[in-house]
Amino acid sequence: MNKYITEFIGTFFLVLTVGLTSGMNALAIGSALMVMIYAGGHISGAHYNPAVTLAVYIRKRISLGDALIYMGCQFAGGLIAALVVSLFMHLPEVADQSTMNTGKAIMAELFGTFALAYVVLNVATAKGNEGNSYFGLAIGFTVFAMASALGQFSGGAFNPAVAVGLIVMNIFEGIKIWIYLLGCFGGAAIAAVVFNLNNPAEKTPAPPEAMID
Amino acid sequence: MNKYITEFIGTFFLVLTVGLTSGMNALAIGSALMVMIYAGGHISGAHYNPAVTLAVYIRKRISLGDALIYMGCQFAGGLIAALVVSLFMHLPEVADQSTMNTGKAIMAELFGTFALAYVVLNVATAKGNEGNSYFGLAIGFTVFAMASALGQFSGGAFNPAVAVGLIVMNIFEGIKIWIYLLGCFGGAAIAAVVFNLNNPAEKTPAPPEAMID
Amino acid sequence: MNKYITEFIGTFFLVLTVGLTSGMNALAIGSALMVMIYAGGHISGAHYNPAVTLAVYIRKRISLGDALIYMGCQFAGGLIAALVVSLFMHLPEVADQSTMNTGKAIMAELFGTFALAYVVLNVATAKGNEGNSYFGLAIGFTVFAMASALGQFSGGAFNPAVAVGLIVMNIFEGIKIWIYLLGCFGGAAIAAVVFNLNNPAEKTPAPPEAMID
Amino acid sequence: MNKYITEFIGTFFLVLTVGLTSGMNALAIGSALMVMIYAGGHISGAHYNPAVTLAVYIRKRISLGDALIYMGCQFAGGLIAALVVSLFMHLPEVADQSTMNTGKAIMAELFGTFALAYVVLNVATAKGNEGNSYFGLAIGFTVFAMASALGQFSGGAFNPAVAVGLIVMNIFEGIKIWIYLLGCFGGAAIAAVVFNLNNPAEKTPAPPEAMID
Repeated sequence: MNKYITEFIGTFFLVLTVGLTSGMNALAIGSALMVMIYAGGHISGAHYNPAVTLAVYIRKRISLGDALIYMGCQFAGGLIAALVVSLFMHLPEVADQSTMNTGKAIMAELFGTFALAYVVLNVATAKGNEGNSYFGLAIGFTVFAMASALGQFSGGAFNPAVAVGLIVMNIFEGIKIWIYLLGCFGGAAIAAVVFNLNNPAEKTPAPPEAMID
Repeated sequence: MNKYITEFIGTFFLVLTVGLTSGMNALAIGSALMVMIYAGGHISGAHYNPAVTLAVYIRKRISLGDALIYMGCQFAGGLIAALVVSLFMHLPEVADQSTMNTGKAIMAELFGTFALAYVVLNVATAKGNEGNSYFGLAIGFTVFAMASALGQFSGGAFNPAVAVGLIVMNIFEGIKIWIYLLGCFGGAAIAAVVFNLNNPAEKTPAPPEAMID
Repeated sequence: MNKYITEFIGTFFLVLTVGLTSGMNALAIGSALMVMIYAGGHISGAHYNPAVTLAVYIRKRISLGDALIYMGCQFAGGLIAALVVSLFMHLPEVADQSTMNTGKAIMAELFGTFALAYVVLNVATAKGNEGNSYFGLAIGFTVFAMASALGQFSGGAFNPAVAVGLIVMNIFEGIKIWIYLLGCFGGAAIAAVVFNLNNPAEKTPAPPEAMID
Repeated sequence: MNKYITEFIGTFFLVLTVGLTSGMNALAIGSALMVMIYAGGHISGAHYNPAVTLAVYIRKRISLGDALIYMGCQFAGGLIAALVVSLFMHLPEVADQSTMNTGKAIMAELFGTFALAYVVLNVATAKGNEGNSYFGLAIGFTVFAMASALGQFSGGAFNPAVAVGLIVMNIFEGIKIWIYLLGCFGGAAIAAVVFNLNNPAEKTPAPPEAMID
């Protein structure tokens, strides 16, 4: 139960920061993710992102049951954060992403989430990186770097729970949700496949303590 | 005695930075907190914040007597820093927070201080995080992220000693002090309760060397 | 094979970030390098830069064969990134570096790449720094600091694969390539010589596990 | 000899970054210091600052002879950097600090250098902090935070070698050198005394390997 609460809290503060700094403070958003990862990593692994959970599942470090509960908690955290943001701020009446190019947006989410999941799998689950102190810094600043480079094309979610939160806040259009589901889950899945191919030594079954279930 | 001096020095430089960069340099403020935490953590635990000390007390890692002395040193550090700021700068004649929405300000301080105390308890007191090198980075950048997201609603103290310092500098109104006391101590207390519930394995009595008394 | 793919991926995301944030976001570029170093360091050593590979070769931590393959993968990563950037953005019709002073540009690339290779050799290959958690932070933020100081004179590549990527994007002029080859490889070679002279205790043959081949 | 070269190189790149980003990029300057500390710490202790060397001498971690040679190398690094900056840029014909308030400038240098030396002694020389990975981050970001808070009053040197470099670049006035000597050496000396008083357990003679001589 503790790990589920941890996923909820971490995703809540991530999406709260995204919503309240919507004027594009990518450094604050990356930092919010970083600090929540350092706080919750020892309890839940600190995914805070359904696409990351998918990647960890493909890499066989979380059971299917827990992966689904994690995703539920992450979407719930994003939704509740969106409601809290609406208490703080007037949100737009209607979302408007009409100037967004669909192809570029999908590519942006694909590349950004690939980078994010690739970094997560390497810094937080690979044997060669055990016991490091930089996992949160690396993951949080991946979001900062990718949002700085790719955010202009898609809004820079790289996380379906963030995308859903932004839809509830009328910042993203609901009808565009498929772009984020496709881009984020697709990018993360490709990263997991690349990681598995590129780290054959990691293919052995996880020791029980490395497995979330 | 050493730990009390350490709390004084750390809070002094935190509030000095808050006062002299009042034009909103959240990154400098978070960095000032980070560096003082790295400098003083090995001596006092580096709270520099009465709300954090309350959270550590609820989590049973500091004695009541020491908690009260810590808070005294922190308020003293904030006060002296405010006086030093007044030597450097012309301060406003009267504070004016008339445009601040009370409900939003309380919520902002509650959420921000909750996040701060939640991160502190996890990165600096949990067994699963022993010996890490990121505790200062995580705590300092929590203040940066929360100030970026929530500072617009309350001024972003997340720390009663900072709030008192800003009142002495005529940046916050004295009559609004209850907002910061309620928000900061409330948020920190909730974080400590959540931490205790969410970390049952940490409930065992602290080993003597982990206890401040 | 894994290390070659890692070099390709890391350089790809570095040059992608350079291209898409060309409006000078040195912090995002340094962060992109940092996160890719943390992700790939345990597999390939995370050079992502032919000049760094040259320095590591002079310092005798990579075989000649591997050094050449590394450089090939890095240039390929930079080229593919440039093509991807061209899918996202309208690139300039023709490059224009006519206001660039050649002497200053060479000096800027020399000093910047010297600093970069000097930091890499010390934090990532010296015995006195084994097992640290800061190698990625130090290397990534060297690029940030040097780009902030020297980027105004040369564009701030400090990396021949970045320079080639920027030439393909029509941001640098192809005819100026020699400036970057001379400045970057020259600066890195000098750094390696200085490192070897200044670290006599490191001169012993590398233990097999520290050698890339 | 290696440690002297290391002090020269580190101070050179610090002052080079100060000179070339004089438009106030405190984050780049703090980062330049950070990366040079991570690169050179294992060789020389990475002072790069005569005031820090004085503090380390008072704390009895460097011999008098080495302290003097360190300071010489640091001033030389600052001077050569100033000359290199003059090759890159048109410098002002004459320095002008006529609007600077002398009292505030001394106070600013005193407080800033106190904070810097206090952080250095704690993170880099105290037993309670051995083997950490954050020493460079803490020291570099102290300069960033203090320059952001106090730089407006004195220019924010916190380092006599930086002050001398800026005088050679005609950014500081030569006649004002005493402000920086007094403020920087004074602040560092006070920090060393406070550290010694506040860390009685550290008073035992340094083990030979912790002593620079």
